[in-house]
Amino acid sequence: MGTRSASDIRSESRFAVLRQLLSSGTATRQDLAVATTLSTATVANVVAELLDAGLVHVVGKGASVGRPSSKLAISDEPLRLVGVDIAETYATAAIYSLSLEHLAEHSEPLDDTDNQPRTVIAGVVAAVHGALARAGVHPDAVAGIGISVPGQVMPSTGVSVFAPNWDWHQVNLRDQLEPELGLSVGVHLDNPLKAVTVAALWLDNGPSTDTMVVVNLGTGVGAGIAINGRLVRGTCNNAGEWGHTTLVQDGRPCRCGRRGCVEAYVGVPGMQATLAELAPDHPAVALHQDAFIAAVAAGLEADDPTMMALLDRTCASLAYGLGDVVNLLNPDRILLCGWMFSALQTWIMPRLTELVPAQALEASLDVVSIQPLEVGRNPVTAGMAIFALEDVLARHGLPSRLV
Amino acid sequence: MGTRSASDIRSESRFAVLRQLLSSGTATRQDLAVATTLSTATVANVVAELLDAGLVHVVGKGASVGRPSSKLAISDEPLRLVGVDIAETYATAAIYSLSLEHLAEHSEPLDDTDNQPRTVIAGVVAAVHGALARAGVHPDAVAGIGISVPGQVMPSTGVSVFAPNWDWHQVNLRDQLEPELGLSVGVHLDNPLKAVTVAALWLDNGPSTDTMVVVNLGTGVGAGIAINGRLVRGTCNNAGEWGHTTLVQDGRPCRCGRRGCVEAYVGVPGMQATLAELAPDHPAVALHQDAFIAAVAAGLEADDPTMMALLDRTCASLAYGLGDVVNLLNPDRILLCGWMFSALQTWIMPRLTELVPAQALEASLDVVSIQPLEVGRNPVTAGMAIFALEDVLARHGLPSRLV
Repeated sequence: MGTRSASDIRSESRFAVLRQLLSSGTATRQDLAVATTLSTATVANVVAELLDAGLVHVVGKGASVGRPSSKLAISDEPLRLVGVDIAETYATAAIYSLSLEHLAEHSEPLDDTDNQPRTVIAGVVAAVHGALARAGVHPDAVAGIGISVPGQVMPSTGVSVFAPNWDWHQVNLRDQLEPELGLSVGVHLDNPLKAVTVAALWLDNGPSTDTMVVVNLGTGVGAGIAINGRLVRGTCNNAGEWGHTTLVQDGRPCRCGRRGCVEAYVGVPGMQATLAELAPDHPAVALHQDAFIAAVAAGLEADDPTMMALLDRTCASLAYGLGDVVNLLNPDRILLCGWMFSALQTWIMPRLTELVPAQALEASLDVVSIQPLEVGRNPVTAGMAIFALEDVLARHGLPSRLV
Repeated sequence: MGTRSASDIRSESRFAVLRQLLSSGTATRQDLAVATTLSTATVANVVAELLDAGLVHVVGKGASVGRPSSKLAISDEPLRLVGVDIAETYATAAIYSLSLEHLAEHSEPLDDTDNQPRTVIAGVVAAVHGALARAGVHPDAVAGIGISVPGQVMPSTGVSVFAPNWDWHQVNLRDQLEPELGLSVGVHLDNPLKAVTVAALWLDNGPSTDTMVVVNLGTGVGAGIAINGRLVRGTCNNAGEWGHTTLVQDGRPCRCGRRGCVEAYVGVPGMQATLAELAPDHPAVALHQDAFIAAVAAGLEADDPTMMALLDRTCASLAYGLGDVVNLLNPDRILLCGWMFSALQTWIMPRLTELVPAQALEASLDVVSIQPLEVGRNPVTAGMAIFALEDVLARHGLPSRLV
């Protein structure tokens, strides 16, 4: 029935207080009540729980007189969170404080032609320990770790149900990863679309929203959805596979096994296929993914007409895909992220401003803002660190959100 | 922040109790607690409120001994609800009891070439009073009325923001309708996609679901979405315009002004265009919408190869559109309804079983059931009667759901 309990509400109040503390750095109880629109009694209860658990501490006195005006902040105890982004061509681990400050990161390249789980696991382990070393953090100080894996993942079991890029089916990644990592805490496994959405919910400075869609553009493409401030997972954590909605009937083969998917045109290999159609002899056609996108950026910088045509075709496809999202979900915000988008954002944004209106119903277009997601260096590692923070809160009996 | 209050929870508990009473007819408090998984204390509170308001009454004693075992039912007081479905070619009004029993209905044809609001309003008034007369209900016994209008509607203002079929922009339908109807209660205006979704949430006998999509197939086509048992309205009540997601880039013109929309292939005028492509001289090409669909049904009944080809092409388009919904939202249920679907359901369902799997990601396909919506004669009028019931509950200070 979707019926909500009183503990759900306490959990949502905790989320509101923590999100506000993360965003403002320090705040009094009164500040928190004003910013969250929660009652002062609710804020006082939530703060008392968080103080007891050592997750929040008092950092000074506020200016007001005659009421509890202590300034509060997220605890600066030496506990650390790890967020890992496993993509097709790299594994990046980033170390965060409990207040989600980015402390250090380390990337390991992955060979996208080697689909053995043990190869990917070795890359993850090297990335995590490399990042811990850079941050000067002992593995015992890790209070939580979240790892993002492309494709369908079940967080409850730690199983990668299906990862099309590696042709993985039912790989129990958590059981294989935990002994190799040698940390004292369990791994939270999830999907990058869920991670970027949670990062936007916790860290984005924009106004709170009715319906938010976070679009991730990299080798693969997809969307995370949040409605009324809550992550939409779908029935088996597979919601958001916008990259596998159809753009062209009987179009290009997609690595999901179907044809004509959005990803086959807008993902980086799709862009490479488009360039091969436009200019089969262009030297960038043969480049590997990162180098290819660097070449596209360089070409656009130099007004190379072939690269401009590639941009136009890619953005036209993207506008169709985004128009479908606008029309089906009527969101108030679409936030764009992903490594391909980050590299080409300067050129993509103006094209979308031009092209999306033709693909969207007027009323729905009028209420949607389409912007880059700005939550620090890597929203996937940030989102996975937030899942790790959720694990820490849950261990204290203080879940902040039913994510 | 989407933060939920204690009154939201009371409202959801009321929904759960009312839904269960509607579905079981009579029940004891104990039965209601078991069926809803609410605590007996919560059920007792909700029942006490509903008894006080006269919306529920005691109809007898239950079998159990030594506990409050009265049998309860929705009140049979003579108050009535009216649900109206304004479509392109007809306005149907149906009269319901407070327990959502369908008592009578009456339809008025609408001339889909006459887009004057006063023409549509006259049709609605005639349909409502015709239905009241058939049911033998005095207008003063109407406790609530809900009217569904195609296109974008704002329930809060009663304005039809945009109705593409009539080229209406910002028509304040409620203000024009209320004096003509001569009822003592205000009109709740909404969109048919919202109505069918609410009908499915309240009346469908299937299991409660994570993500449900109700697909409405008639002259226009669209989808209603419910997540965790709650209607998804989108930012400006425009969520669910699946009919205006793109099926074919630069395809057929659509009445929304764009090209290649799902509706341009799957809506009834779209099917007529397909038949004109397949067999320009076929006599059914020139028929009006209802007669056209009757001719399609007759042709399929007689194994007419042209009509079989029309069915195949329509279902292929529908399968692409449904595949996109499966991949983007990962629902556990898709429920099909609408007058075109009702007429051709026997032929459409087996084709979809064949065609949808090729358009959906395997994991998401595995968890979705695609079935006809079965909530009585007309899910649009039923859904609008539910909105009217919500108005009645709200007037008693007992909202059952934040719809």
